[in-house]
Amino acid sequence: METKINRQWRLATRPTGLIKELNFEWHEEPVPSPGKDEILVRNLYLSLDPANRAWVREAKAYATPVAIGEVMRGIAIGVVEQSHHGDFQAGDIVKGVLGWQDYALTDDTALTKLPTLPIPLSAYFGVFGIIGPAAYFGLLEIGKPKAGETVVVSAAAGAVGSLVGQIAKIKGCRVVGIAGTDEKCRWMTEELGFDAAINYKTEPVHKRLKTHCPNGIDVFFDNVGGAILDDVLSLINVRARIAICGFISQYNAVEPEPGPYNFRNILAQRTRIEGFIIFDYIDRYNEAYEALGGWLAEGKIQYRVDVIDGLENAPSGINKLFDGSNNGKLIVKVSEEPFSNAAG
Amino acid sequence: METKINRQWRLATRPTGLIKELNFEWHEEPVPSPGKDEILVRNLYLSLDPANRAWVREAKAYATPVAIGEVMRGIAIGVVEQSHHGDFQAGDIVKGVLGWQDYALTDDTALTKLPTLPIPLSAYFGVFGIIGPAAYFGLLEIGKPKAGETVVVSAAAGAVGSLVGQIAKIKGCRVVGIAGTDEKCRWMTEELGFDAAINYKTEPVHKRLKTHCPNGIDVFFDNVGGAILDDVLSLINVRARIAICGFISQYNAVEPEPGPYNFRNILAQRTRIEGFIIFDYIDRYNEAYEALGGWLAEGKIQYRVDVIDGLENAPSGINKLFDGSNNGKLIVKVSEEPFSNAAG
Repeated sequence: METKINRQWRLATRPTGLIKELNFEWHEEPVPSPGKDEILVRNLYLSLDPANRAWVREAKAYATPVAIGEVMRGIAIGVVEQSHHGDFQAGDIVKGVLGWQDYALTDDTALTKLPTLPIPLSAYFGVFGIIGPAAYFGLLEIGKPKAGETVVVSAAAGAVGSLVGQIAKIKGCRVVGIAGTDEKCRWMTEELGFDAAINYKTEPVHKRLKTHCPNGIDVFFDNVGGAILDDVLSLINVRARIAICGFISQYNAVEPEPGPYNFRNILAQRTRIEGFIIFDYIDRYNEAYEALGGWLAEGKIQYRVDVIDGLENAPSGINKLFDGSNNGKLIVKVSEEPFSNAAG
Repeated sequence: METKINRQWRLATRPTGLIKELNFEWHEEPVPSPGKDEILVRNLYLSLDPANRAWVREAKAYATPVAIGEVMRGIAIGVVEQSHHGDFQAGDIVKGVLGWQDYALTDDTALTKLPTLPIPLSAYFGVFGIIGPAAYFGLLEIGKPKAGETVVVSAAAGAVGSLVGQIAKIKGCRVVGIAGTDEKCRWMTEELGFDAAINYKTEPVHKRLKTHCPNGIDVFFDNVGGAILDDVLSLINVRARIAICGFISQYNAVEPEPGPYNFRNILAQRTRIEGFIIFDYIDRYNEAYEALGGWLAEGKIQYRVDVIDGLENAPSGINKLFDGSNNGKLIVKVSEEPFSNAAG
């Protein structure tokens, strides 16, 4: 019998600044066999997320850090190859924390069987994963935008940001997106219906925000932190709401960076700043999926997926999140889908 | 007829850092006579507040800056000496923005006639002024403490902070106060019933907070900002609430200071930070006065007043707010009360 090989990226050293390939060790070992109640999954797609960077820090953030020598943690969609578990059978499409590897041996902890809907599998990393609920609840429950208000979104061409802006448009708001390439800016204004877009790499953000937000800023959905948060804070209206979804500008910081210089403005403007983590809304995901599914069907929202080919390119590919070169939800194609009609 | 003199402190230059006496010009002029619909008030007590420092900045915060040459803005309680206004008569005790001077000529804009309650007049600067509602609404509406939770207060021996801590105790919380002298710390723990107090000038704040808040921090009522906010942010529990009432550590800053280094913690801990300004609750002050009046009558809350004698000492006295040497609500006695039984 031919021995199948399981290729893995294991954490070798903790990165300083950007993740480098040498922070990982490429490891090959035979594919394991499932024991009692275990399931063997072949990974199809791996999701690359800012959270991956947080997981390889020394310090515990909201998840235990990946240990040195451990297979890199990552969320993946796969197909069950062998199952000794009553709830799963070969051929099931599943999603879970399956790691940066070809095959994962797992029990059913946090393994979800995906329904067979007429949508690409990659959508389960996006609108129907945690991206959709993050945009939906972060904007609507924390930002609480009212029709006619001005909503600013950072990392606005990203998976979460692009949904946030589109939902804000559906709610009748003026929407200004901030992103890092002209192509992304064009996509936002020409395809997604944003009122304005700012390329933070080539344009003076504060000045452009002033122009594009003539009535000030009521809601800021922030994925970035740092200088952009500071620019926004100087232009917030009384009782503005700032939903903090991420600090992508800071995840690679070697030295701790200070909070925003305009932080004091929250007093004069009675601003509410609130951090949120999407897992807090896990009981309500279906509420978001229903709304988003409806808008998708009506053609009111769009999303895009940026596929990196091959597990071997995961460590270098993840930095596309941080240099802003990804166009849409960033995923790695690990192996071929079993069904030709569900291409990611 | 003897000409009565009106002594005034007028703003001469904008202070850099702490307010200095030379930022003001001592001016003497005859007491003016009230015209049609005008009221002449003799000031009795002047309230010294962190807001005074904000008002002499160049930049508009939430009030127009005091102009150079203008009488320094200040809230005072006085007695009506002469009135050509139907709603006021000689002898009325009033409160308003009457300025750093012996006599103020005013129309009725924002002039409040004080009721004759059996409380010292100075209480109208404190519990029954804006101090009481600030503590009441800031803690209860923004901090939303639940019985059993841990509440930390900065500038905790101050006029607002000391009420906040006492209200939190009434609500069944563990209360830790931070102040700048051992005497203040003793007052909080021995007289006001706080569970613990930290002298930030002599003790390591972060370490002591860890000891005194074994279950973490659920609510922070912050009057100070800066390093103390940073220390608290590193110890907040999931879904902590931070009510930002002031940034007294920053009001004299010459260079803009950055926001808290631990700002990022608000994401992992889903923290809500909210600035508030007491004037937003003006329609609900009576709600606070009723509750506070009841607790005062039951002996459940205490407050103290620090009286500086003489208008001439206002510019030097105000810095007691910033070096923490005041013990209680800081006021200046400008002239004698007309009634011997209502001594401040």
